[in-house]
Amino acid sequence: MEQKVQKVVIIGGVAGGMACAARLRRLNEAASITVFEKGPDFSFSNCGLPYFIGGEFEDRNGLLIIKEPVLRSRFNLDLRSMTEITSIDRANKKVSFRKLVTGETGEMAYDQLVISTGASPIVPPLPGLPHPRILTLRNMVDMDRIVNTVHEGAKAVVVGGGFVGLEVAEALTHRKCLVEVGIPACFTLPASPHSPPRSTSPPACFPTSSPASPHLIVELCDQMIPLDPRLTHPACFTAIVEMCDQVMMPLDPEMANPLHHELRNHGVALHLKTACKGFRAVGEKLTVDLGAGLITDVDFVILAIGVRPDTAIAQAAGLQLSPRGYLVVDEHMRTSDPAVYAVGDAIQTHDVVLDAPTVLPLAGPAARQGRTAAENICGRATAFRGVQGTAILRLFGMVACCTGANCKTLARAGKPHAFVHLHPLNHVAFMPGKAPLHMKLVYDPTDGRVLGAQIVTAGQGADSRINAVAMAIQGRMTVYDLEQAELAYAPPFSGPKDPVNMAGMLAAGVLRGDQAMTSWDRISPADFVLDVRSPQEATVGPILKGHPVNIPVEQLRSRLAELPRDKPINVTCAVGVRAYLAVRILLQNGFTQVFNITGGHTSMLMDLGMPMPGQRAPQPAGEHAPASVHACCGTAAGACGGAPGCH
Amino acid sequence: MEQKVQKVVIIGGVAGGMACAARLRRLNEAASITVFEKGPDFSFSNCGLPYFIGGEFEDRNGLLIIKEPVLRSRFNLDLRSMTEITSIDRANKKVSFRKLVTGETGEMAYDQLVISTGASPIVPPLPGLPHPRILTLRNMVDMDRIVNTVHEGAKAVVVGGGFVGLEVAEALTHRKCLVEVGIPACFTLPASPHSPPRSTSPPACFPTSSPASPHLIVELCDQMIPLDPRLTHPACFTAIVEMCDQVMMPLDPEMANPLHHELRNHGVALHLKTACKGFRAVGEKLTVDLGAGLITDVDFVILAIGVRPDTAIAQAAGLQLSPRGYLVVDEHMRTSDPAVYAVGDAIQTHDVVLDAPTVLPLAGPAARQGRTAAENICGRATAFRGVQGTAILRLFGMVACCTGANCKTLARAGKPHAFVHLHPLNHVAFMPGKAPLHMKLVYDPTDGRVLGAQIVTAGQGADSRINAVAMAIQGRMTVYDLEQAELAYAPPFSGPKDPVNMAGMLAAGVLRGDQAMTSWDRISPADFVLDVRSPQEATVGPILKGHPVNIPVEQLRSRLAELPRDKPINVTCAVGVRAYLAVRILLQNGFTQVFNITGGHTSMLMDLGMPMPGQRAPQPAGEHAPASVHACCGTAAGACGGAPGCH
Repeated sequence: MEQKVQKVVIIGGVAGGMACAARLRRLNEAASITVFEKGPDFSFSNCGLPYFIGGEFEDRNGLLIIKEPVLRSRFNLDLRSMTEITSIDRANKKVSFRKLVTGETGEMAYDQLVISTGASPIVPPLPGLPHPRILTLRNMVDMDRIVNTVHEGAKAVVVGGGFVGLEVAEALTHRKCLVEVGIPACFTLPASPHSPPRSTSPPACFPTSSPASPHLIVELCDQMIPLDPRLTHPACFTAIVEMCDQVMMPLDPEMANPLHHELRNHGVALHLKTACKGFRAVGEKLTVDLGAGLITDVDFVILAIGVRPDTAIAQAAGLQLSPRGYLVVDEHMRTSDPAVYAVGDAIQTHDVVLDAPTVLPLAGPAARQGRTAAENICGRATAFRGVQGTAILRLFGMVACCTGANCKTLARAGKPHAFVHLHPLNHVAFMPGKAPLHMKLVYDPTDGRVLGAQIVTAGQGADSRINAVAMAIQGRMTVYDLEQAELAYAPPFSGPKDPVNMAGMLAAGVLRGDQAMTSWDRISPADFVLDVRSPQEATVGPILKGHPVNIPVEQLRSRLAELPRDKPINVTCAVGVRAYLAVRILLQNGFTQVFNITGGHTSMLMDLGMPMPGQRAPQPAGEHAPASVHACCGTAAGACGGAPGCH
Repeated sequence: MEQKVQKVVIIGGVAGGMACAARLRRLNEAASITVFEKGPDFSFSNCGLPYFIGGEFEDRNGLLIIKEPVLRSRFNLDLRSMTEITSIDRANKKVSFRKLVTGETGEMAYDQLVISTGASPIVPPLPGLPHPRILTLRNMVDMDRIVNTVHEGAKAVVVGGGFVGLEVAEALTHRKCLVEVGIPACFTLPASPHSPPRSTSPPACFPTSSPASPHLIVELCDQMIPLDPRLTHPACFTAIVEMCDQVMMPLDPEMANPLHHELRNHGVALHLKTACKGFRAVGEKLTVDLGAGLITDVDFVILAIGVRPDTAIAQAAGLQLSPRGYLVVDEHMRTSDPAVYAVGDAIQTHDVVLDAPTVLPLAGPAARQGRTAAENICGRATAFRGVQGTAILRLFGMVACCTGANCKTLARAGKPHAFVHLHPLNHVAFMPGKAPLHMKLVYDPTDGRVLGAQIVTAGQGADSRINAVAMAIQGRMTVYDLEQAELAYAPPFSGPKDPVNMAGMLAAGVLRGDQAMTSWDRISPADFVLDVRSPQEATVGPILKGHPVNIPVEQLRSRLAELPRDKPINVTCAVGVRAYLAVRILLQNGFTQVFNITGGHTSMLMDLGMPMPGQRAPQPAGEHAPASVHACCGTAAGACGGAPGCH
């Protein structure tokens, strides 16, 4: 039952607000729809800002998804840019506004109000703030400011290793800046039971003055990284300062590790577990205080620590806020006032996997929330289903993506969960462009329900697999469903068993009791580790945890006598496939305490914070992980390809 | 409850057979497992053969997924290559074999038998067959024969436009062959109610002799195609002869059309609706008789018409076969004899969307079937769920993929179905690499259940979306679920509304009554068509069906008086997005018979068999479709990008 709405006022003209306006107009030609926007631009792509900074495209207007004249003529909208809402009078159903250019004020009545005010970059109360060259990035005005500040050879520090921090760090590197990145002391990260403190150590000290030499600064990081010669442009230096022990928090720590190396390999100095304590202007330059040291001669700083919701006027109007200050809404996007809706980054939403409140400041959910609000305003009882946290990041040559819950959040929530690591190739081994997908599948061990997945890769095809798992989570499907999934296969795209199938088979096998899993963070020096790789592989990429004994799987049946029967045997290989066969052989030969160390040697590298096969190693000697080892079956000859025998 | 198996014999050592063997070994160390293979190679990638022919990789051994020594040592398998099974004695549970090299014969007992004999390329009873240069492609021996036959400037004809025919045609083009492609008269295609006969006409005649001039031959095809100058290598000519009016039968006809142009733009002469009547040797060359004409001076022919199951020994053993000669199995992969299992291309399986028997000779299902058979042999009651027909093809610069049922098969099966066309960009418009995904979503209009999807594109990202829909079909999800899906978005990968969201929103909107759809095949010259694009667009890419009246959507509200109230109004624009808004405006202004012509002008091009925007046009004058039109919202200015306002 659609009812004519009299007058809808929308506060905020970007993702959620504009989606709401467009949907409203489609459903109701008669409505009066007014959109107030504090900034100059409507309907711009927030997510695109870093890519423009990085010079990936040149048409700044391309960021304006629908141009203002089109919005007016096509959707018959009353658009008020550069106009701030100063208060909401819920009792009389009206808002007060102020035009930022003229200072003129006014009021406008509404029947329904939609709050899409978004969230602002956090600027912590640190010494030295504010400063004209300590910048944040939220809109096109901020973007222009950064573009005008950037110059070749400028030395930049990015504080914060989330999506925006990483994207901006990459963009500045493309602009041949000198960049650093971190999170200030006001942020903490609960530890995961699966992830003990990383072995990376914080930088010991920083010189109080140094020339802008990338080599010198990089030396001061956790480990000395030999920079890619192609990238050591004399005027190229960027650093990230991040208080946590990892970047990109939606990933579990071991999954973020390959990104750390990717950043360093592209000349970004990465300071993990480093708090930014403040800033000091020294002449034309800035000095960034990291507590244990200083970064000097800095030209500008980007604060990308996170966002806080812009809910001051909502709070002043007495609308219910969450403890963290986000607007509380129901599934129809209604606030505590049924005439007031709220959508986008300013609201608290619902995590469908954790079945708990959450916030997820992303454009996709914002657009769907805007649409949902519009439908409810027009009398339809449409419900927003909540979010599951699907996200993707391109970082230089890598892609990292995730959906659902990770082990950190599940542990924090006290929910039962288990995981497997795997490293299948993105497509058959013989086709050019093959690359392992480093995957983590998280599931409920009580019923096999898929809870989450994370993928990191230097190749193609991560988006395809994370979307498949995202659909599975939405459909409350299980690892048994992933096992049976029929996904698209031709040699340029996949293998007869898709990586999603393999993930499902692996987890389903654990649930059926075919094998038991352990993981590297549970392996201590006293533990017995059986390495079933070839002796050659075992030499090139040694097992650095536990007490490794090397028996190639092909010889295992005839060398069972060499194994202890009185203690747990933790089996490993390159990626876990041969170890699985070894586990099966042992279990069928009377060994009872047998565990596959999930993900094999490759996951060990991730656990230890070492470069992945194919990534350059941090050791000065340039010792590389065995890139020739086949990523699927772990044979040096590439004997498997994931096809008939895997898992 | 696992039971020890005594002795398992597997006939056929490729996809299904080897997956079965590997899984059997993992589940049962004690079993004796013997694999008989008629050819010389175990565990090779059938799907990879065309790519080796095309020179996309050089290591022939790369096709051997697991090498034979590894299969023996790691999986403890008894492998018998070049050995044919001559009969199955089910009463006494034994098989008779013959070694092809020595002629030696023997018998082997089994407790369980697995038939994975696959399927052979069809060689129809046409005049001139067999001939040493009329070849088929099934295994590495066939591949080597083709590679040895191919030489630069060789003129090749490919008969059949399915996966193998298309992949081989591309491969031969890479090898600078002259190639043609078609299906002989023994195949027919039931007409779809949604797809009337195409407007393409068969070649009028063929000269009885002609120099190997690509231009000349191409002229003789349906339309004269100006070849891409980069591709008109004087020694480059390939032709496909296909009896149907389309290639790649899993697609609906209009979705296959962009592939036709892709082939022709790469110098492949395509003869649709053309039957191959026979062959004649003329000196060192072959002449191919197409009925209406001849292709002369042909160096070799590849028959890629389809496959028939290798079930002669199964039939002789009295096992139940389907009317088409495929082995009938239950969900546990058991044949009519409970001691005999069958997997892979030789079996009839179950279509989960149509809920009907089907055959699907693809490697993915074969591998999962082999695994299922192994589990049942080991006493687990694992069920194979059936197939849904997910497939993908890379063809030169395009990708075509599908999952679930298409309209042709649903119409034939008499199942209720509806569809929408859409052409969203693969990612936001401002990022380099944008390209429209030409999508068709098929759903059940009674409950919104997703029945199938098809995507054709010249860009990245089709695999990602088809996999998402494939999971939705597996989970029996609906268009409402697609509408709400939370898929991975960052500017290099997608938009805030993923194309899968848009497809779901579009179909869900139809089901909710927001708009009614029609399609171009239902539009006749007498019908009233309202074109709501800008006048400029309407001039560049005119509406060629119905009786078009152009009123830009922005002016529609003020020009309603120009529209008839007594007959249906069929609204169109570039891709259907502006038309949707126009439909909403009209419906809310008292017009009752209003229809959106799904997919807009772009779908009209597909329906008429014309090149897509961005593809070169077939007209000699070189008139191009408006490549500058924005593929999402259809505005010349690119005003939408799919973000807030689409659908």
